[in-house]
Amino acid sequence: MKYVRFQKADKTIKSGIVEGNSIKTVEGNIFGEHKVTDESYNLDDVKLLSPVEPSKLLCIGLNYSDHAKEFGKPIPEEPMLFLKPPTCVIGPEDNIMYPSQTQNLHYEVELVIVIGKEAKNVSEEKAFDYVFGYTVGNDVTARDIQFRDNQWGRAKGFDTFAPLGPWIETEIKDPDSLDVKLLLNGEVKQSSNTSNLFFKCANLISYLSGIMTLLPGDVIMTGTPGGIGPMQVGDKVEAIVDGIGTLKNYIAK
Amino acid sequence: MKYVRFQKADKTIKSGIVEGNSIKTVEGNIFGEHKVTDESYNLDDVKLLSPVEPSKLLCIGLNYSDHAKEFGKPIPEEPMLFLKPPTCVIGPEDNIMYPSQTQNLHYEVELVIVIGKEAKNVSEEKAFDYVFGYTVGNDVTARDIQFRDNQWGRAKGFDTFAPLGPWIETEIKDPDSLDVKLLLNGEVKQSSNTSNLFFKCANLISYLSGIMTLLPGDVIMTGTPGGIGPMQVGDKVEAIVDGIGTLKNYIAK
Repeated sequence: MKYVRFQKADKTIKSGIVEGNSIKTVEGNIFGEHKVTDESYNLDDVKLLSPVEPSKLLCIGLNYSDHAKEFGKPIPEEPMLFLKPPTCVIGPEDNIMYPSQTQNLHYEVELVIVIGKEAKNVSEEKAFDYVFGYTVGNDVTARDIQFRDNQWGRAKGFDTFAPLGPWIETEIKDPDSLDVKLLLNGEVKQSSNTSNLFFKCANLISYLSGIMTLLPGDVIMTGTPGGIGPMQVGDKVEAIVDGIGTLKNYIAK
Repeated sequence: MKYVRFQKADKTIKSGIVEGNSIKTVEGNIFGEHKVTDESYNLDDVKLLSPVEPSKLLCIGLNYSDHAKEFGKPIPEEPMLFLKPPTCVIGPEDNIMYPSQTQNLHYEVELVIVIGKEAKNVSEEKAFDYVFGYTVGNDVTARDIQFRDNQWGRAKGFDTFAPLGPWIETEIKDPDSLDVKLLLNGEVKQSSNTSNLFFKCANLISYLSGIMTLLPGDVIMTGTPGGIGPMQVGDKVEAIVDGIGTLKNYIAK
């Protein structure tokens, strides 16, 4: 099922499940008790929001070998963890704001794991029991700042730097075999498959839960494949994971 | 005034203001409308919690020259930003859990700024208008992992790695002239003054608000002075900022 958060014309915010071109409203907490109601909306009449409001965004650096190579680094021996602040999160069709501090704003398409249950010290074998579903993310990065700063808190942390969406897909059989693609103004810039992830989904969940407690709604941004490059004001950027959907955003100033 | 969060014997959680040896309960959101009530408790009869539940913990690396020197790095040209996840936060007297992944667990006493109002693109001159108060923090670090990992998400991000407290002091005239000290089992290990901060409080607030929206309750951990060193299971660690208070924690396994 495709879980969305959306805003109605009267600005109220709801959760729902997408069926074809309509959304059936969900009552309750999607990570806890909730039920589908008869209240429904046309997808075109509402604004989709980020499908989740994570308390933490755990991001993995250099997790595809072609990206590590273009970045001039080896794949780390263990997953390279950094965080983006929750204030980065925006939804589908929202504007990514080009900060005046950078001259090199980059896209990074990523498969994003959405945690469904509190997880601590989870084994790889049990890891998928803690997954609610998957969404698409764009780990927007000020590349010039990233190379200048020792830590990536700033380069990865500007407001609007974590588009997520368009929904959480709960029916993914194998997250390790999904095509991942990024289009800039319709042109393919990144194209890979999550089978090329060095540290795979179950491994990441187990690894991270061995460090910290993962909470419902927390997201793991699994890393980006090769083909990174700049975006300009006015560009349309589409991050696509097959079997989930297309996350479209625009660059604005 | 000293704002606390505390847990009563019946496990309910309240906010309050410390006056001498008692706490007067506060109703409402301390960052918004709230009032002091007549309900009061003896400080010894309750358990103090972390005085704030930040949506983000923004941490500044290498911000005292003596610490940068012992770390073998120059002071960065701009504040070095990294994040700790909210799951790091614990309160006074809580145990810091020694992770099995590290063999070198370090203390780091820090002055912590607590944001009171949403802040974006704030000037240094206006920065203090957005401060609710100050508390004490211990930026607990797995030093061996920090040197091994390129990014500090893991070394700084284990559960219990951000003790905060004992309260938020709102009556600090000048945060840039406070003595900062760390005692390990009663022995002074770090001793400095926030006048030695290279990037000072107003500068940090302005800088960070130029990157991301600071929200009420967000904290800025301003950096640690020289004298870093290891803690062992069973140790008592006291982080002290004069004019605020003492944050005491224990190391456990």
